[in-house]
Amino acid sequence: MGKGIPTREEDYSGWYNELVKKADLAETSAVRGCMVIKPYGFSIWERMQAELDRMFKETGHTNAYFPVFIPKSYMSKEAQHVDGFAKECAVVTHHRLKNAEDGSGVVVDPEAKLEEELIVRPTSETVIWNSYRNWIQSYRDLPLLINQWANVVRWELRTRLFLRTAEFLWQEGHTAHATEQEAIDETEQMLEVYATFVEQFMAVPVIRGLKTPSERFAGAVETYCIEALMQDGKALQSGTSHFLGQNFARAFDVKFATRDGGLEHVWGTSWGVSTRLMGALIMAHSDDNGLIIPPRLAPTQVVIIPIFRNEEQHSAISEKVMEVKISLERLGVSVKYDDRDTHKPGWKFAEYELKGVPVRLAMGPRDLENNTVEVARRDTLEKQSMELDETFPQKIAGLLDQMQTDIYNKALEFQQDNTHKIDDYEEFKRVLDEEGGFVYAHWDGTDETEAKIKEETKATIRCIPLNAEAEEGKCIYSGKPSQQRVLFAKAY
Amino acid sequence: MGKGIPTREEDYSGWYNELVKKADLAETSAVRGCMVIKPYGFSIWERMQAELDRMFKETGHTNAYFPVFIPKSYMSKEAQHVDGFAKECAVVTHHRLKNAEDGSGVVVDPEAKLEEELIVRPTSETVIWNSYRNWIQSYRDLPLLINQWANVVRWELRTRLFLRTAEFLWQEGHTAHATEQEAIDETEQMLEVYATFVEQFMAVPVIRGLKTPSERFAGAVETYCIEALMQDGKALQSGTSHFLGQNFARAFDVKFATRDGGLEHVWGTSWGVSTRLMGALIMAHSDDNGLIIPPRLAPTQVVIIPIFRNEEQHSAISEKVMEVKISLERLGVSVKYDDRDTHKPGWKFAEYELKGVPVRLAMGPRDLENNTVEVARRDTLEKQSMELDETFPQKIAGLLDQMQTDIYNKALEFQQDNTHKIDDYEEFKRVLDEEGGFVYAHWDGTDETEAKIKEETKATIRCIPLNAEAEEGKCIYSGKPSQQRVLFAKAY
Repeated sequence: MGKGIPTREEDYSGWYNELVKKADLAETSAVRGCMVIKPYGFSIWERMQAELDRMFKETGHTNAYFPVFIPKSYMSKEAQHVDGFAKECAVVTHHRLKNAEDGSGVVVDPEAKLEEELIVRPTSETVIWNSYRNWIQSYRDLPLLINQWANVVRWELRTRLFLRTAEFLWQEGHTAHATEQEAIDETEQMLEVYATFVEQFMAVPVIRGLKTPSERFAGAVETYCIEALMQDGKALQSGTSHFLGQNFARAFDVKFATRDGGLEHVWGTSWGVSTRLMGALIMAHSDDNGLIIPPRLAPTQVVIIPIFRNEEQHSAISEKVMEVKISLERLGVSVKYDDRDTHKPGWKFAEYELKGVPVRLAMGPRDLENNTVEVARRDTLEKQSMELDETFPQKIAGLLDQMQTDIYNKALEFQQDNTHKIDDYEEFKRVLDEEGGFVYAHWDGTDETEAKIKEETKATIRCIPLNAEAEEGKCIYSGKPSQQRVLFAKAY
Repeated sequence: MGKGIPTREEDYSGWYNELVKKADLAETSAVRGCMVIKPYGFSIWERMQAELDRMFKETGHTNAYFPVFIPKSYMSKEAQHVDGFAKECAVVTHHRLKNAEDGSGVVVDPEAKLEEELIVRPTSETVIWNSYRNWIQSYRDLPLLINQWANVVRWELRTRLFLRTAEFLWQEGHTAHATEQEAIDETEQMLEVYATFVEQFMAVPVIRGLKTPSERFAGAVETYCIEALMQDGKALQSGTSHFLGQNFARAFDVKFATRDGGLEHVWGTSWGVSTRLMGALIMAHSDDNGLIIPPRLAPTQVVIIPIFRNEEQHSAISEKVMEVKISLERLGVSVKYDDRDTHKPGWKFAEYELKGVPVRLAMGPRDLENNTVEVARRDTLEKQSMELDETFPQKIAGLLDQMQTDIYNKALEFQQDNTHKIDDYEEFKRVLDEEGGFVYAHWDGTDETEAKIKEETKATIRCIPLNAEAEEGKCIYSGKPSQQRVLFAKAY
């Protein structure tokens, strides 16, 4: 595409990396593993945040904010939790710099050593449950339904923009309940909120399921997840919702007086999605010309580009464009008019294609004469001339809705075309190696088999699908009996 | 008020601390100096964020996100900057914990020492200007108008909820311009955005001014600020906007090709407000009964409390309340109906008074009969019975507008009543000691005099007011000539 971006066919991974940079979504920073989210990328994340936040509030949650630092000792209170997170964390040990005595710059002041080291939060269960101990006394204080938007740090060695970075942005919900069933219901509700958001706004179909014990969140009794399929045939975990049982309540001694006068540990959940969703959005839909952003998340849904040779034409076109812009905005469509004279129309066409603006309108002198406009849709690259009559704004709004559906359906069709049911291990290996995609196969339910398959094929069990049909079968690896197929794939 | 909160008269500082906790705004955490912003406090901060973010976008700014970590060496690149921030920062030195060999828990893994220490951002000029070097090539890339919402850390020893905490939330704008004048205009524009927000939404009148050289932001050529007066006669700096000249452009080598083919350093600004504004909001208006929140920032503007003795009354009242609620919501008023049967009406009255909900409606069986409702406004505590006719929703919306104005005017009157012009140093000391408030006095313009006055009175020059009349006078301390009065006060 003449912008220095390889095609997906040539180099999928290079295509992704370059697209993220060239489309001004994000870039690496001088701080190892940390990214800079650039204005255009951030404006898409803001649209995601706004919709998710609305959905969280509609399901009764409120936002709060907890400290970025976690005392080292907190991490040890839940035994599995520390194993899951201690190996990859940023540790604050001092609280002051001072001028080096040799004048070479600033150095850490050894006298400003902290009594107890602080961890930059990799996730906030510990610091939040420590607060919940004081917030929860009785069943009247339950359920406690809180969400936090925050930055978190996990010291990843191999990083990729949005998909795996040392620092990332996310939301983390942390709820406390009086009964086990209520906490499970919450866990499942939030999984469904995530699935709805990813499918209806990001236009990415997902498989809902349970993680296997080896892939559970450190400290959870059960981890639910949604898994999406990318265009290179790899899976991307797009959101997780954890049923914590009473694990954190026990670790942080959070009890409540029950209705009938007893004293019990509360039941917990936590759930999160992150800027990783940006990676899913980009990889699920975009093409060799650049981004394809579903209209419901596009910061600009319609861009209007004038084509003129002189100021007279410019001003006549601008007058007409303003009418069109207002009529579209009245329907809630976001519109940008780009009449900069520092760039040619052809450059602008390529630029907005790269940025994934769903609909492009181009208007030249002849259009003005004929009261028409050229309408191009980003997903299919189709162009048509449309009359600027009173039905035009509705038609464009309708086109945006149609595109949202079409983009989803295309991704769904891709997912279906790349989903296999396999019962033979040689075929299983061949498909994962040569074709990729989702593979439904039988598994004997043991950690050993799961680990062996991972070792031999690099594929992991993405999830044990929810609401799947029971089906008698034999484990694809061990031949032992199995009651249900699970979902395998190579994954990000 | 029977909630364990001292009166302002008894103990202003204790009143503030207890009010913040009892009204569920925030609390201290187990991490020294870091606060937990509780759901109710956070919902007010979200209202502030929404309005500020809208104002930033209306003035052409977009949001982005930069790393939380700053390499130690960056801090040294701007000489004054490192002096200003190195003494109070959280330093990350390691990236891993491991199990202690004696089984006593987890310890820092000495093998995971970072090559270069990272500072948790106290402010982001350095890391942002390091990115700008690559983002800016030509005058076509300017102005660059970016804002970031983020958490920052400054290792404060003496902390107070919202006013001074080790970690706080804020926004920081960072802009780059082709000319000095454009950067100065931006600096002044953003000060005016802050002043408008604080006056029109927070209902707190402010004085706009320039900081003296000794109080400037570390690395700025000029620091603009807004100063508000609290009920105890102390000033609170509520926002700052910095003209950075070419200081950070030089430190990070950010140059641009000019229109006429030259190569020059760009001109910069930065500006920020933080969760400190929550402290200003609470201290400016609230009374011994609890919070007073101006309607434009109140998460709930109207609370409706039913008074009933049996289910029949409850259900009849609820039916009427639903009509009222919908009619108010149609006008954009946020309404909460609290018909919980776990708490008595009297408890609810006190609770919403404490939380500062602007308008309380109470409806009992007699009101239902008479088609009336009792309306109580939080600021004046006045109550009246109003008829539930078709003009009722408009009247409540009008009442909220009136309250917004009244709360501002009350604060303005307080500010005016507590502003003094003083020319005698003994009187100056007496007023600052006994009465507090804003004091306009002459100053000779030297750091020495400023420091001496601070030492002797604990008052600082809050600002050199903008647009003040020139007035010949003599320095209140040294007797040397002065051209303009400056604003002194004790401050938070």
